[in-house]
Amino acid sequence: MDFSGIYPALTTPFAHDGSVSLTDLKHNIHKYNGTDLAGYVVNGSTGESILLSREEADGILATVKEAAAKEKKLIAGCGVEGTAETIARTKRAAELGYHAALVKNPYYYKPLYKPHALIAHYRAVADASPIPVLLYSVPVFTGLPLEASEVIALSEHPNIIGIKDSSGDVRRAAEIIAGTPASFQVFLGAATNIYPCLSMGIRGGILALASALPEKCTAVVQLYRAGQQEKARELHNILVGCSKLIVSETGIPGVKYVMDQRGYRGGLPRLPIQPLHEEQKKRLTALLGRLEPAAVRA
Amino acid sequence: MDFSGIYPALTTPFAHDGSVSLTDLKHNIHKYNGTDLAGYVVNGSTGESILLSREEADGILATVKEAAAKEKKLIAGCGVEGTAETIARTKRAAELGYHAALVKNPYYYKPLYKPHALIAHYRAVADASPIPVLLYSVPVFTGLPLEASEVIALSEHPNIIGIKDSSGDVRRAAEIIAGTPASFQVFLGAATNIYPCLSMGIRGGILALASALPEKCTAVVQLYRAGQQEKARELHNILVGCSKLIVSETGIPGVKYVMDQRGYRGGLPRLPIQPLHEEQKKRLTALLGRLEPAAVRA
Amino acid sequence: MDFSGIYPALTTPFAHDGSVSLTDLKHNIHKYNGTDLAGYVVNGSTGESILLSREEADGILATVKEAAAKEKKLIAGCGVEGTAETIARTKRAAELGYHAALVKNPYYYKPLYKPHALIAHYRAVADASPIPVLLYSVPVFTGLPLEASEVIALSEHPNIIGIKDSSGDVRRAAEIIAGTPASFQVFLGAATNIYPCLSMGIRGGILALASALPEKCTAVVQLYRAGQQEKARELHNILVGCSKLIVSETGIPGVKYVMDQRGYRGGLPRLPIQPLHEEQKKRLTALLGRLEPAAVRA
Amino acid sequence: MDFSGIYPALTTPFAHDGSVSLTDLKHNIHKYNGTDLAGYVVNGSTGESILLSREEADGILATVKEAAAKEKKLIAGCGVEGTAETIARTKRAAELGYHAALVKNPYYYKPLYKPHALIAHYRAVADASPIPVLLYSVPVFTGLPLEASEVIALSEHPNIIGIKDSSGDVRRAAEIIAGTPASFQVFLGAATNIYPCLSMGIRGGILALASALPEKCTAVVQLYRAGQQEKARELHNILVGCSKLIVSETGIPGVKYVMDQRGYRGGLPRLPIQPLHEEQKKRLTALLGRLEPAAVRA
Repeated sequence: MDFSGIYPALTTPFAHDGSVSLTDLKHNIHKYNGTDLAGYVVNGSTGESILLSREEADGILATVKEAAAKEKKLIAGCGVEGTAETIARTKRAAELGYHAALVKNPYYYKPLYKPHALIAHYRAVADASPIPVLLYSVPVFTGLPLEASEVIALSEHPNIIGIKDSSGDVRRAAEIIAGTPASFQVFLGAATNIYPCLSMGIRGGILALASALPEKCTAVVQLYRAGQQEKARELHNILVGCSKLIVSETGIPGVKYVMDQRGYRGGLPRLPIQPLHEEQKKRLTALLGRLEPAAVRA
Repeated sequence: MDFSGIYPALTTPFAHDGSVSLTDLKHNIHKYNGTDLAGYVVNGSTGESILLSREEADGILATVKEAAAKEKKLIAGCGVEGTAETIARTKRAAELGYHAALVKNPYYYKPLYKPHALIAHYRAVADASPIPVLLYSVPVFTGLPLEASEVIALSEHPNIIGIKDSSGDVRRAAEIIAGTPASFQVFLGAATNIYPCLSMGIRGGILALASALPEKCTAVVQLYRAGQQEKARELHNILVGCSKLIVSETGIPGVKYVMDQRGYRGGLPRLPIQPLHEEQKKRLTALLGRLEPAAVRA
Repeated sequence: MDFSGIYPALTTPFAHDGSVSLTDLKHNIHKYNGTDLAGYVVNGSTGESILLSREEADGILATVKEAAAKEKKLIAGCGVEGTAETIARTKRAAELGYHAALVKNPYYYKPLYKPHALIAHYRAVADASPIPVLLYSVPVFTGLPLEASEVIALSEHPNIIGIKDSSGDVRRAAEIIAGTPASFQVFLGAATNIYPCLSMGIRGGILALASALPEKCTAVVQLYRAGQQEKARELHNILVGCSKLIVSETGIPGVKYVMDQRGYRGGLPRLPIQPLHEEQKKRLTALLGRLEPAAVRA
Repeated sequence: MDFSGIYPALTTPFAHDGSVSLTDLKHNIHKYNGTDLAGYVVNGSTGESILLSREEADGILATVKEAAAKEKKLIAGCGVEGTAETIARTKRAAELGYHAALVKNPYYYKPLYKPHALIAHYRAVADASPIPVLLYSVPVFTGLPLEASEVIALSEHPNIIGIKDSSGDVRRAAEIIAGTPASFQVFLGAATNIYPCLSMGIRGGILALASALPEKCTAVVQLYRAGQQEKARELHNILVGCSKLIVSETGIPGVKYVMDQRGYRGGLPRLPIQPLHEEQKKRLTALLGRLEPAAVRA
């Protein structure tokens, strides 16, 4: 199965009482269904999955499955610290009809996670998972990147089909691409790196920014593939500024705020993530105004 | 309540089928009851708490409470990423009769956890917790230390009574001690730093090493307090080597292995933590042989 | 002046007695003159400039100037820790006929080099330098990267014409390109990132690898510009492996060893840089054998 | 030779025209001669040695030698990146009558400085140096600490007599002390850690803070050795705040500013180090006012 394309790392909407709002989630999926997004990545870092109970996470998986248009590919975030619990989550995702499991590497006991421990973990998960596994490295949060040599070793496992590398390190992505078979699917997690790395052969991106600005994120790939390099580069330069403000600086609450401005249901984050300051909101509104004057007006 | 003294960061024993062995845990507590340990810290990092379900964690809390000698102080690890879930865990610990809650700072969404977010989190937890709160900073695992300025700000809260600082940074500990009231109780998490920092006014330590070598960890404090500096320093130098091999290099499986050699029930760690190599076991056995020839022979 | 193209970060050859061998240097330049390299970067990090006296550095500048073919652009590494000494070096480079000065940011007193200090330093240098200034950020050695916001602020100075960013962070390069005028010339220092970043609008690279494998480094740009993406990507993948072994793993002694194998005069590094182990030499020879069987045979 | 005691890492005074003021330097030494400082450390990091020419550095060495009281021990900063130049500097220091050479580890080519390279460098320097060598590790500036295992290996060399460890990592200092002979002299570079580490057996400190507040830095050691722990701890707590503001936050310009307030000749730093802001000066003046009201008034 070829997962090529742009995916939003979905946010999780919360109701006023702090519980997960499956209604708002459905609303978002229905609206995303009308875009060129290749599918959905559920319960990732942007989804505040680490702040959710297992029951909440399962409810979200079921809701997205039900609301998603048929052609959308579905990827479930399944990686938790323990090997056994990670396997259990891949099984649940498979039961619910997900096409692949995104498995973040364990990271808490960093000094103990030597390469052989990480490789043993992933092999055990991939052996047991009923659905294909995508590796997931996100050192901005975990503090422990998957190294190219580890990824290359794991690419030999028949049930490990690719990686989402959110390290932002293009050298590492280049080493992974150069060292794995052409069938190994490399996705990036940093919007800023998608456009340049298309030329290296990445399959696409799984992006927090695509939850807020899906059309722009998919357009840059379409322009590139259509040979319109000048326009692609222009749009890329715009996305660089958007990614910096929305993802790097304001983060999940920023993504949610932009969603609110654009007809999606973003809402507030769960504590301990703090809501935005007024000054941050103003900067985001100003950015949107420059980006799509009509949309903001409407 | 004065918590002064040395505490083991308890390990969690697992049965052959991978489940938590409350029987082995009880065995260990009964044996520790005969030492000069001031009490027990349950469900901390050394307890593999991040690999336990909520039910398993509760079972462990109840078992330690039941098995502990009356004079032992009981501290429950309650810090998880979410504010609401952390509060829920402090309430459960209080119900079970624990004397204090050890609350690790949230750390996954590092770029979002600016000082005001961490401070808001801890204030909310301390406001709601029925038992006193000890802050807990362990950057070797979390990648996000609590800074002295944050700790000093939080020391004003009447229900925040101290900190376990496992950063290993004595400069930070010195700044915390110099900037907080004398009633604020500072504990360290690195065995190597206990002896020198006693002169600065720390209350004691919460140590993985004290699960393996409780008598030696308590003796260094007793010698210091008895004015036997020469002997204290000699023992300290021995503990430096023990801490390096048992805690820094072999970690949780190393602590458990030494426990097994000394009549406790250590056992294997839970995956993805790997068991020790034979070579590591040999080095640990050799260290023990130098440390207490008779004990190993027996 | 448009500096577009690929430049070698020249190595410095030493004679058997440890002195700089200007004869060997001339030999290398004459051989490089026959390639498509755009020019030469002298006294950079790869040139062991930090191990050279001021007199040695001046002798090297004069020799390269004399030996270089007329069409080659000449860039002199001038950045040292002090502002005054850096200015003196730009003046000397100008006198000797260099076209631009590459100025590494000061980095020793890291905690003191807040953005305003770095900006003041560069403005003073650019005000006084008779030749245009290229900023130079190389955190693998300095531990202190130039941030995008600093570079964007400095791009307004009429005598600061671009940057060599060796941070390897494509996100930062993208932010610099998006935030500076089109006339600001961005070069990268990591061979691995040249090919993908051409699509973003970088002007080229200043590469240690181009001292060892100049033809391959220039060919990837030529293939890209000729629209031969498939071949460009293939060559890029080969260079990824070369860069990893020759630059990241064996470093300056590795670059020099490959030069020796290919008819250049590499020689030994200056102490405290150690010569290669035999095992490293074998790996480099094997890589070259796969890369250009005929050349190694000859 | 036993170097026990507190040393100032001397600052370098500059005249209005930016040249080194040997007159001001003499003034400072004469004033320091009246204190309990054990001696002087010349051309260290605090001396802005990296911003000095070789001639300036030699002039400073000669001046301090001439001005120092006879009983003061003299230690010359000799460590530069190159092995040969470092050796040349130890010889010059010996000629000028210095008692020991403080040799910072090379650090620019970090990835090349594996343990065996650092050990080979130090052995070559110690073999050739006419005076005893003190290792010097200062990762806040170099980004490359000397590890305990390297120091322990080097402690076997008869001409390597100790270390100044400015890493601030007490665990590392403890491992060094536990792993080296009792004759190996360990000094720390962080004022905050002196008091607690006296109990571990350190010999003293080489401190930027001792240039500004020599009496307070020596008094804490004297109180400790006199058994007045309560007073020692009280003074230590005061020094923690001083070190934070004067050394960590305002750095060299802060040290110099306090010197100016206390009858020494501090003056301005050399560019690119920026002078203090007015707000920083106010905070320093306020600190001094709390510290020694009479002195500031006078």
